[in-house]
Amino acid sequence: MSERPTIDDVRAAQDRLHGVARVTPVYSSETLSRLSGRTVLLKAENLQRTGAFKIRGAYNTIAQLSAEERGRGVLTASAGNHGQAVAWAAREAGIAATIFVPEAAPMAKVEAARGYGATVELAGDGFDETVAMARTRETETGATFVHAFEDARVVAGQGTLGLELAGQLPSGELTVVIPVGGGGLAAGTAIALRALRPEVRIVGVQSAACAPFAGREPAGATIADGIAVKHPGTLTREILDELMDEVVVVDDEEISQAIVLLLERSKLVVEGAGAAPVAAVLAGRVAGGGPVCALLAGGNIDATTMSSVIRYGMTASGRYLVVALLIPDRPGELAHIVGLIARHRANVLAIQHHREGRNIGVLETEAELTLETRDEEHSQLLIRTLADAGYTVRRLR
Amino acid sequence: MSERPTIDDVRAAQDRLHGVARVTPVYSSETLSRLSGRTVLLKAENLQRTGAFKIRGAYNTIAQLSAEERGRGVLTASAGNHGQAVAWAAREAGIAATIFVPEAAPMAKVEAARGYGATVELAGDGFDETVAMARTRETETGATFVHAFEDARVVAGQGTLGLELAGQLPSGELTVVIPVGGGGLAAGTAIALRALRPEVRIVGVQSAACAPFAGREPAGATIADGIAVKHPGTLTREILDELMDEVVVVDDEEISQAIVLLLERSKLVVEGAGAAPVAAVLAGRVAGGGPVCALLAGGNIDATTMSSVIRYGMTASGRYLVVALLIPDRPGELAHIVGLIARHRANVLAIQHHREGRNIGVLETEAELTLETRDEEHSQLLIRTLADAGYTVRRLR
Repeated sequence: MSERPTIDDVRAAQDRLHGVARVTPVYSSETLSRLSGRTVLLKAENLQRTGAFKIRGAYNTIAQLSAEERGRGVLTASAGNHGQAVAWAAREAGIAATIFVPEAAPMAKVEAARGYGATVELAGDGFDETVAMARTRETETGATFVHAFEDARVVAGQGTLGLELAGQLPSGELTVVIPVGGGGLAAGTAIALRALRPEVRIVGVQSAACAPFAGREPAGATIADGIAVKHPGTLTREILDELMDEVVVVDDEEISQAIVLLLERSKLVVEGAGAAPVAAVLAGRVAGGGPVCALLAGGNIDATTMSSVIRYGMTASGRYLVVALLIPDRPGELAHIVGLIARHRANVLAIQHHREGRNIGVLETEAELTLETRDEEHSQLLIRTLADAGYTVRRLR
Repeated sequence: MSERPTIDDVRAAQDRLHGVARVTPVYSSETLSRLSGRTVLLKAENLQRTGAFKIRGAYNTIAQLSAEERGRGVLTASAGNHGQAVAWAAREAGIAATIFVPEAAPMAKVEAARGYGATVELAGDGFDETVAMARTRETETGATFVHAFEDARVVAGQGTLGLELAGQLPSGELTVVIPVGGGGLAAGTAIALRALRPEVRIVGVQSAACAPFAGREPAGATIADGIAVKHPGTLTREILDELMDEVVVVDDEEISQAIVLLLERSKLVVEGAGAAPVAAVLAGRVAGGGPVCALLAGGNIDATTMSSVIRYGMTASGRYLVVALLIPDRPGELAHIVGLIARHRANVLAIQHHREGRNIGVLETEAELTLETRDEEHSQLLIRTLADAGYTVRRLR
């Protein structure tokens, strides 16, 4: 099943997915357009069932199994969105699914697959070992292994997103920016867009930590775990080499800022991989000045990670300021300082007092202030204001 | 302009809003349906332009001004969604807007109104004083004061949300749950639903901290600041007394848990007031067992608050467990404990060691473990497991 899918295969997939997958909306973002100096459209695929595009490919594959294959069930190896998608699609099709996940997989992902009724097998120390164990089970039981990207049925399924886009995007010059991991989403979407909207530029985005399409060696963990695929498919690479115009990379700091902007301004929860296209646009890494559509491919980020990313993203945007102030230890001084800060409309998030330490005089105290500011410029203004008022200011962050 | 609007007024508002306001989607939520034991639909009005329903009423009012009135501009007093909505609607209509906000208003809200091109006046210590100053300006300049709810044009505008819902909801028995502050959204939506879907039950939700429709005295701050309106309108109260079936209240803990669920499972950022209907459904406070549609009225919650709510909501759901363990101070003990925890698939978020303190023996150490768990039951299981392994366990949170 690895011959290259055609636009007709994508159309057939769309028929199968009718009433199963959601047609997710496309919204323009005023804030992102202002920040990037070009019209930014968002394809909110994070609102897809299970929170990611993966059900398109998984369901399209499962819907084509024979009665005998259905009886033997499906399996896959994935601790991420693809695992959840196979679990969900199998339940929708009324067949059994087994999802192999590495033993160290996060609890939330295991629970999600279980919640969709799949059997979850915790197996293997790392991903390669987990895949090997799933393949062994495939041989033993005859269950169908649903690959995350190296399968024409999967690529055609993901391509339905491109088919939707072709009808949702404004006419004329346009760039579509797609996260690239294994390459299934990008390949499928490119097939659909090249057939229906040949004038559209197609740009892939990878994480700087894992960007084989950009010819980079893997370099550690990334918040965009959904696209951290070291070995993309042969099928998808062949399609993308031909149909994709360009690949760009973004780092975790850029991705974190994109996640925070999408949360605050677009009211959308988007995971690292899903926010990578917005990060690329904001970093000015997508060529041209015309309208651009970012595929928000998924939204599966757990609450604890979200909370960390908010702190990290706000710090990176210069929206947290931490300063140490030496102040005379007498009544009213702190009130004076807090008053100065309030007058410049920053919020005080925390105050810590230190009376012990080097360079702190007997009648002095050091106050460490954590402030929420508008941006870096606002932070600089606050530092100047405090210095002008006679305080010794040391910026900590 | 305080005669009661009719369904025809709501229809006329819909014509005016065509191409201006978004038709926001309705999604079913599998997780919320499972948790509440009934079908839960979500009207994702948090995806509306400016992040809240308020532009419907504001734009419908501004669009009806005469050429002379337009020339004098509009003003309002609001540090919240209504202020942003008036700023945005005025810009869309090409007229000037002045937004009065209390001096202590959060920076983010001031910036948002300014970003839409309005003049922002920081005026007054509290909301009543700010309103008085806006009213003085109204008299001086002849600018039109756009009220947040006590105006038939505003109520008719908010009613377009009900008109949309009438076409989006499945037929048959159904309950619609609406946040109630000043009452404009609920009154408008009720007028539309009573006309087109008379069989639908209409339930209002207020914050326990400020629930005049439930006959309660105000009792302090609430995370649902968008519906913390002490004095609702005469017009809206008259409409709601007749058309609303019931009012229920929810507290901040319930609202926080709803916000976290909507973030994690529905990938939607929803503010306190907007999440109140989901909180009411999950708390079992909405009568009946049939399908229920929760209006997610707005999504304007800043990132810092979101981060705090995540921590609070996860603790309230029993998903953080903090325990103190007395353990023999020898190599390997901590590894043994962490191994036990891993086997039960909880995540260790933090470990702190205390070697000083009452009840800690010379050869003992106390470890304070912060764990992320699935739910309260999972927390209990972990406590039992550690106790069964011979450790003295004290639950701190």
